Amino acid sequence: MAESRPTLEAVAAHAGVSRATVSRVVNGGAGVRAALRDRVEQAVADLGYIPNSAARSLVTRRTGAVAVVVAEPERRVFADPFFAQQLRGISRELAAHDIQLVLLLVERKADYGRIGRYLAGGHADGTLMFSLHHDDPLPAMAAESGLPAVFGGRPGWPGAERDPDLLYVDTDNRDGARQAVRHLLDRGRRRIVAVTGPLDQTSAADRLEGYRDALGGAGEAAPGDFTAEGGERAMAELLERRPDLDAVFAGSDLMATGVLRALRARGLRVPQDVAVVGYDDMEGAAWSDPPLTTVRQEVEEMGRVMAALLLRRLGVTAPEAGDGGGRAAPLAPVITAARLVVRAST
Amino acid sequence: MAESRPTLEAVAAHAGVSRATVSRVVNGGAGVRAALRDRVEQAVADLGYIPNSAARSLVTRRTGAVAVVVAEPERRVFADPFFAQQLRGISRELAAHDIQLVLLLVERKADYGRIGRYLAGGHADGTLMFSLHHDDPLPAMAAESGLPAVFGGRPGWPGAERDPDLLYVDTDNRDGARQAVRHLLDRGRRRIVAVTGPLDQTSAADRLEGYRDALGGAGEAAPGDFTAEGGERAMAELLERRPDLDAVFAGSDLMATGVLRALRARGLRVPQDVAVVGYDDMEGAAWSDPPLTTVRQEVEEMGRVMAALLLRRLGVTAPEAGDGGGRAAPLAPVITAARLVVRAST
Repeated sequence: MAESRPTLEAVAAHAGVSRATVSRVVNGGAGVRAALRDRVEQAVADLGYIPNSAARSLVTRRTGAVAVVVAEPERRVFADPFFAQQLRGISRELAAHDIQLVLLLVERKADYGRIGRYLAGGHADGTLMFSLHHDDPLPAMAAESGLPAVFGGRPGWPGAERDPDLLYVDTDNRDGARQAVRHLLDRGRRRIVAVTGPLDQTSAADRLEGYRDALGGAGEAAPGDFTAEGGERAMAELLERRPDLDAVFAGSDLMATGVLRALRARGLRVPQDVAVVGYDDMEGAAWSDPPLTTVRQEVEEMGRVMAALLLRRLGVTAPEAGDGGGRAAPLAPVITAARLVVRAST
Repeated sequence: MAESRPTLEAVAAHAGVSRATVSRVVNGGAGVRAALRDRVEQAVADLGYIPNSAARSLVTRRTGAVAVVVAEPERRVFADPFFAQQLRGISRELAAHDIQLVLLLVERKADYGRIGRYLAGGHADGTLMFSLHHDDPLPAMAAESGLPAVFGGRPGWPGAERDPDLLYVDTDNRDGARQAVRHLLDRGRRRIVAVTGPLDQTSAADRLEGYRDALGGAGEAAPGDFTAEGGERAMAELLERRPDLDAVFAGSDLMATGVLRALRARGLRVPQDVAVVGYDDMEGAAWSDPPLTTVRQEVEEMGRVMAALLLRRLGVTAPEAGDGGGRAAPLAPVITAARLVVRAST
């Protein structure tokens, strides 16, 4: 009964226009007068006509694509190797299953509406979202679009903890920060300050908690915004507030490079005068001057796991045996371990 | 007559399944047995059923999105600020017209087929492609998809020069290189070597031609692959071949940073022993040690112009008055001027 589907000719007859006009409208409408275009669009809607190329994907609603949404402006995405590594892991896992990665960046608040429409428009089978802030509209947009979603980082938005189906991948940020600060204490440092990321992101907030766990007190912290410039500014501020500081825990390697710059500008030696620990273990950490002690998180692997969870939820891959008994492992959030890497900066 | 469009209920009755099952299949098919899914998909095809969210964009075939394809692995895209600047210009122009930028990266040869299917699948209204190589399958894929396209960089693939409709944006690479090498000659340098990008890209080939124009001869060149590491390797090779060299024209700033590193490693002073010119005038050029003389191209503006040309071809924006007489400027390739910026490295 596939013959019952309306043809291009039927649409042309219904609208009282030529086949060529229908074809032009269906392919974007360039060069067709508005009144004529309206008539064709009405005929397409009346008859339920489906253009060929779209018909196939409509049947299954499978596009073979996954939308990756990074809730950061393009300037940050390209300046911070964290995103490149995460995307590399995602891209490799998707490519291994012949799924296309479609990257959407969020430049300004005004972009959210458009991204929501794209997600709901049937152009992807699922979505991966990362770098979310507490008040981020993206989780609600993912829910509205009906697309299965996996998040990068522990969700911090209101209600997230009550959603048993929420899938995310994170590293144990609080434990990683504890390891970093305990290491500074072991080195005999006693006046340890912290440079934090934006505290409306759980990764930044959790690392600050870990710093305080290890210190057994509130400590002294300044916000560095996860950028090198922010780290430099925060360090300058902390040197004003605590001129006697002898160690810095920076919540990311990129902020740590700014910290090193600020210390060097004041003639302070690392680690003799001030010890510095970063977070992430990006490629650059081993090459900085001095090489940076840092907390390693397997960023590329975290990206890969995000994609793998989504492919399982989409039914692209089968659940792996979880208990050796052949039963499927339940779909659940994944928290990877953090591990201190000691180099010359401490 | 919009009532004549088949409903979800009609599909359920036709397939002999529940409404919920149809809904699940239409929304991705998770948790539905294959046999049942096949029956529903057949019913969807038989009746020409269009799910709601997809129906709207089908009528006009407008997705409100533009696919940007960068023919480079993600490792290069994220390491080279050239791409970030180009994307920034594209992103701003598209956002100003409420068009979503959808970024597709090409990691491996195997990815091309999938990208071609995505482009042909009706998920974007047009495409911007850049960093193309001579044998790149992307132009053919753009043509097959039927999507209007604008290219970044002068097309070098066979037959390109015979296509009067081809739209692209480039800078005058040959003239830029001539300016750079003439400046080195003016500074009294006589043994000027070149570090080139991949010569299967017109930007690299045109810059080498400009170098030779200014020298009035073949000169001495080594390939640096548009990366810092490649620039370092090429410089080492040139120092072997021409130990008496007194100047280097590097075909990109990123390669120039590798050139500076190689010279420093051999104890050669810049510019006293060897003068160095880069190409691009990326943000980092002014901050390198020493600050880099380079050829400025307006990369962000080039990205913006690429997007603007595509929006005109798509009919999203009206043609601007081109001659003051109110007539529309013809859609044509845009070549921007290159301009030498002199700093301390020469």
